[in-house]
Amino acid sequence: MNPRSLALTLLALTLAGSSLRAEEGMWTFDNLPSKKISEKYGWAPDQAWLDHVRLSSLRFPGGSGSFVSKDGLVLTNHHVGRGWIQRVSSKEADYVKNGFAAASREQEIKVPGLELMTLMAMDNITDRLAKTVKAGTPEKQALKLRETEIEKIKKEMQEKSGLTCEHVTLYQGGEHWIYSYKKHTDVRLVFAPEQQIAFFGGDPDNFTFPRHNLDFSIFRVYENGKPYAPSHFLKWTEKGLKAGDLTFVTGHPGRTNRQDTLAQMLYSRDFAIPMRLKAMERRKAAMVEYAKTSPEAARQVNTQIFGIENSIKATTGYWSGLKDKEAMARIEAAEKDLRAKVAKDAKLTADAGQSWAKIEQATKIAKGLAKETLNVGTANSTLLAQALTLVRIADEEALPSEKRLPEYSDANLKTAKARLGVPAPFYKEQEIFMFTKGLEDAAKELGAQHPYVKAMLGGKAAAEVAKAAVEGSKLSDPEARKALLAGGKKAIAESQDPMIALAKKLDPMTRSLRKKAEEQVQSVITEHGTRLAKARFAAYGKNTYPDATFTLRLSYGAVAEYKGNGTLIQPFTTFGGLFDRYDGWGGNAAKAHEGAWTLPQRWVDKRGELNPSLPFNFAHKVDIIGGNSGSPVIDKKGELVGLIFDGNIESLPGNYFYDEAVNRGVSVDARAIVHALDKVYGATGLVAELTGK
Amino acid sequence: MNPRSLALTLLALTLAGSSLRAEEGMWTFDNLPSKKISEKYGWAPDQAWLDHVRLSSLRFPGGSGSFVSKDGLVLTNHHVGRGWIQRVSSKEADYVKNGFAAASREQEIKVPGLELMTLMAMDNITDRLAKTVKAGTPEKQALKLRETEIEKIKKEMQEKSGLTCEHVTLYQGGEHWIYSYKKHTDVRLVFAPEQQIAFFGGDPDNFTFPRHNLDFSIFRVYENGKPYAPSHFLKWTEKGLKAGDLTFVTGHPGRTNRQDTLAQMLYSRDFAIPMRLKAMERRKAAMVEYAKTSPEAARQVNTQIFGIENSIKATTGYWSGLKDKEAMARIEAAEKDLRAKVAKDAKLTADAGQSWAKIEQATKIAKGLAKETLNVGTANSTLLAQALTLVRIADEEALPSEKRLPEYSDANLKTAKARLGVPAPFYKEQEIFMFTKGLEDAAKELGAQHPYVKAMLGGKAAAEVAKAAVEGSKLSDPEARKALLAGGKKAIAESQDPMIALAKKLDPMTRSLRKKAEEQVQSVITEHGTRLAKARFAAYGKNTYPDATFTLRLSYGAVAEYKGNGTLIQPFTTFGGLFDRYDGWGGNAAKAHEGAWTLPQRWVDKRGELNPSLPFNFAHKVDIIGGNSGSPVIDKKGELVGLIFDGNIESLPGNYFYDEAVNRGVSVDARAIVHALDKVYGATGLVAELTGK
Repeated sequence: MNPRSLALTLLALTLAGSSLRAEEGMWTFDNLPSKKISEKYGWAPDQAWLDHVRLSSLRFPGGSGSFVSKDGLVLTNHHVGRGWIQRVSSKEADYVKNGFAAASREQEIKVPGLELMTLMAMDNITDRLAKTVKAGTPEKQALKLRETEIEKIKKEMQEKSGLTCEHVTLYQGGEHWIYSYKKHTDVRLVFAPEQQIAFFGGDPDNFTFPRHNLDFSIFRVYENGKPYAPSHFLKWTEKGLKAGDLTFVTGHPGRTNRQDTLAQMLYSRDFAIPMRLKAMERRKAAMVEYAKTSPEAARQVNTQIFGIENSIKATTGYWSGLKDKEAMARIEAAEKDLRAKVAKDAKLTADAGQSWAKIEQATKIAKGLAKETLNVGTANSTLLAQALTLVRIADEEALPSEKRLPEYSDANLKTAKARLGVPAPFYKEQEIFMFTKGLEDAAKELGAQHPYVKAMLGGKAAAEVAKAAVEGSKLSDPEARKALLAGGKKAIAESQDPMIALAKKLDPMTRSLRKKAEEQVQSVITEHGTRLAKARFAAYGKNTYPDATFTLRLSYGAVAEYKGNGTLIQPFTTFGGLFDRYDGWGGNAAKAHEGAWTLPQRWVDKRGELNPSLPFNFAHKVDIIGGNSGSPVIDKKGELVGLIFDGNIESLPGNYFYDEAVNRGVSVDARAIVHALDKVYGATGLVAELTGK
Repeated sequence: MNPRSLALTLLALTLAGSSLRAEEGMWTFDNLPSKKISEKYGWAPDQAWLDHVRLSSLRFPGGSGSFVSKDGLVLTNHHVGRGWIQRVSSKEADYVKNGFAAASREQEIKVPGLELMTLMAMDNITDRLAKTVKAGTPEKQALKLRETEIEKIKKEMQEKSGLTCEHVTLYQGGEHWIYSYKKHTDVRLVFAPEQQIAFFGGDPDNFTFPRHNLDFSIFRVYENGKPYAPSHFLKWTEKGLKAGDLTFVTGHPGRTNRQDTLAQMLYSRDFAIPMRLKAMERRKAAMVEYAKTSPEAARQVNTQIFGIENSIKATTGYWSGLKDKEAMARIEAAEKDLRAKVAKDAKLTADAGQSWAKIEQATKIAKGLAKETLNVGTANSTLLAQALTLVRIADEEALPSEKRLPEYSDANLKTAKARLGVPAPFYKEQEIFMFTKGLEDAAKELGAQHPYVKAMLGGKAAAEVAKAAVEGSKLSDPEARKALLAGGKKAIAESQDPMIALAKKLDPMTRSLRKKAEEQVQSVITEHGTRLAKARFAAYGKNTYPDATFTLRLSYGAVAEYKGNGTLIQPFTTFGGLFDRYDGWGGNAAKAHEGAWTLPQRWVDKRGELNPSLPFNFAHKVDIIGGNSGSPVIDKKGELVGLIFDGNIESLPGNYFYDEAVNRGVSVDARAIVHALDKVYGATGLVAELTGK
């Protein structure tokens, strides 16, 4: 580096540092802004503190959690646990609706398929990977070379440590890591409150604050049939938080798009998001229609409707960020600044000077492919999805690992196969209904003459096709799926199952679309995203954090009010506020808005025993996003003070930028959990284990 | 009317009828949309009901109220009564801060200057007035002719009935009425809660909902030294309201601008409102600066700061309405519709075809005058304002009534003189401070060379001028003012009082500005506003309501939720919610935001005796605006169920248009008042009188 570019870098470091908002960042554990935290809060984590909270943290499928007792108790959100609670429920014992409390360890219910992960080690493989691709290698070939090398490294490390190794791309390819996890596969349900108190306020209150959700559930990890003793767990707070107190959050933010180019953001704003919203609304409408067919139907799709409503509200929130003119102007200015820096440096210009234009071109291609990508698929059918996996595994297994679709590589194949064997609830009427709607929607979107529509419907009505395929298929039986899996290519070829037949027609179409998207869009965006990330490194250094990648991150910030609803929003809600929201809507008698603000009867009965002043939920300045659900909120002592379960509505644009003025994480107060367990549920044993008293 | 234009009118009636929003309207008592109310709510008021609520209603200076007991108890807001409560307070007995409760009738405190009005009769004088102006009379002369005739009618009626008669212009001059009031001049303070509970949440919560204000105060009207027995009063509800219940509000909406032309609205949006906001911010800053000089100073201006903050938030809200593109498009479309109707009718074209252009031209002239109108004045000095009145009365008295400035006409002169004799608290330091700031600001805005600035400052510093004038003046003594008043023109001419000297210089300047504004702006807008109102009548008939005019109106609508803060806002708040807001901010210990959400100690002490489920405030679909403060909320039985004290933040654009989706009146629940009187204040006698138990 010559002196001139060094000077440039130093100046840029200062600029980039100051341009980060005060509490911004989903930081990796190797790169915490300790100086900044320390300057603002007079304290920053040391390595022991960091190791303690990392080893206490857990990854759930799609969410986060933490160890909270020496005997392996695990705390997460009710809405992270809900799918699993439902899986161990039945028509007779609806633990989602009625809650569940194991009176003893023997009553704890094993949850099939649930796997939790502790992040044991992080290894930076950026340099090793860089060496595998020589300068001048064409994009497509470079991608393949890197993929092959990554698989090789993972395999090596997995064999060495016995841990589960995952490749992690940070800074859009600016860094590559292997994260090694200890996987916990015997997880049992210990406690769940009624969904009605966990999700009090329902869809209207979702993503908002002030809030009153007791959104927690408790599991226990077992090993060799005994409660697991984690090396680290979070001690339960005694005092709790007050306004202004510093909090930390460890968890797995799923995805942000803060490093997207302006062209990508405009593509999302003007095309991709509106299209996605439309598709979600269609899917929701179908489910709602199905739910109306019977109470049992409503029970079946309750969770799925919640999930999709959640997605719609979230996506609308992200979208609002892109429609924020002031924020977009800041993003445009930042891009302009980077463009100017790249233009002034010959090497950066050679590497990344064309990258913005290339990415913009790729978004145009994406736009042309979008309608087919969205509609050529398994049309809401779970059986067709399983059939497609069976058809593909039969073909892919014959290839060397590095030539397969990545989800069937050696590292992933076992999981993919195992998943096909797991028993899951199956509802024939629901399947027929949703498949019919899916086929109808696709036909409407693509037109009757589209090859997919012709292949799927073969000139018949969607309802007829769906009914025949679902009723004629044996794939709802895990044994039938296992048999086809065992029979390999021959069994698939000979299968008369109508879902397999449809999957065979579907397979080449989706492969072809996927290939186009990968070659013309994804590889271009990956390649040029990497180039831009490298340029960003060269210009600003590593004093920022990478976009979210559903890997362990640490966020921080104080419990804090914010401006909203024309006034200032208080940092804490209380048990009294919960009942105010209940009474203000007329209570269980009025059942306003399909009972969104009703309470389980035991809450009404025990009201007099509850302390109305005790905090229930709180808002804090932590930079989080979907995937952080279930994240522990930790104080300076490394103790558990709360449980992230949401962000406020103002946090949703956080997908694209962080606004510390109004972006708030929303958490259950740790005190509320033990108070409710004690006073409402009489779960004294659990309280004793959690609080160590 | 020829058949063609009749048909046009019928069609238009349908259109205009359907274009009114469901609960829109501040209706006059002669023109209630009974059919619409009945269709929607299955019930509408009859004449007896209307007479009952009208004769139970009261006008306060700047607000509304109602009789609520057979012995003349009057209910209004704390913030309507506050100025009067302060007037009977002292440094030693601060009833605004600490509240007041008369233990017996003997302890009820007479409030000097407070006058309440009951609307006894309404007479339409439109036709009579029309006859006084012949077709073709020039605008200026027509205005004068009408004014003279109105004074004559008022005088006649006043002499006949012994009531106080006021001229009321409705529909921008489309109708003229005389409203006759019974005036109550012996009004005594009975009860006031502490300001802290009346205005809980302070400026941050002001104009918002959910809300927790016990914003009421109670007075009693006396006549001949005895409690007055009103012919009608509102019985206190026993059951109270629930969501969906129909409510009525009688009160005095002060001012709306819903019939303004688009040009007027754009003038307000782009020029007048921003300028007004800037001036208010300056005035507030001066008061805040003064308040910081001592606790006593803070006590003095507390109410004034509240008043100006209130105005800033309200004005910002009105402004937001004008910035609502969708609403402005509706307004533009409505104007276009009326323009088209006028263009199609030769007579309407002759009358009003030019009126939009004339009004637009007048707004341009107003723009040119605005800076001087705003800054050439009494510069925050109460003494200078009194001096100016004295100087003017001396001159005006010599003229025949119809040639005087309207505020000194025969009908108004007595009041103007009486006001000068009323003792009022006077704080010399405050007067000097605020006058200095006022002069400094005017100099800054107008420039040192402006004749006003030169005349006021005479080359000296503002502080010097203000100090000398305030300290040298005797006008803070009501006796001194009375003496000057009695001495007439000669006494004024000979007066050496420095404030009189300044007023003599100021008088010609303000008269000249006022004359320009009246001739070139106000008379044009009045004249052409009248023409447009007449055209509107011809086109759409009288099935709408006039802009607010601080005269008695009736609004109606159900208790209802609305969309806000990302969710649905509950219709009721509760006592439990009050304490949630208290606890959520850390209570009296934390004293967050200068104690905005702290509670009087007795509320903390009595918390355990309060019913947390009982409604505290509620939101309902009633079309109200400033001036409606203190309005009774009445149910179908004609009983008192609540007390209007605010609108939500979404109601502020109501100045220009009504949006039933989110515009809500905000009221104290009648049940909360008696519960608090009973449990917190132990005012059992008052509770018994109010509830008749």
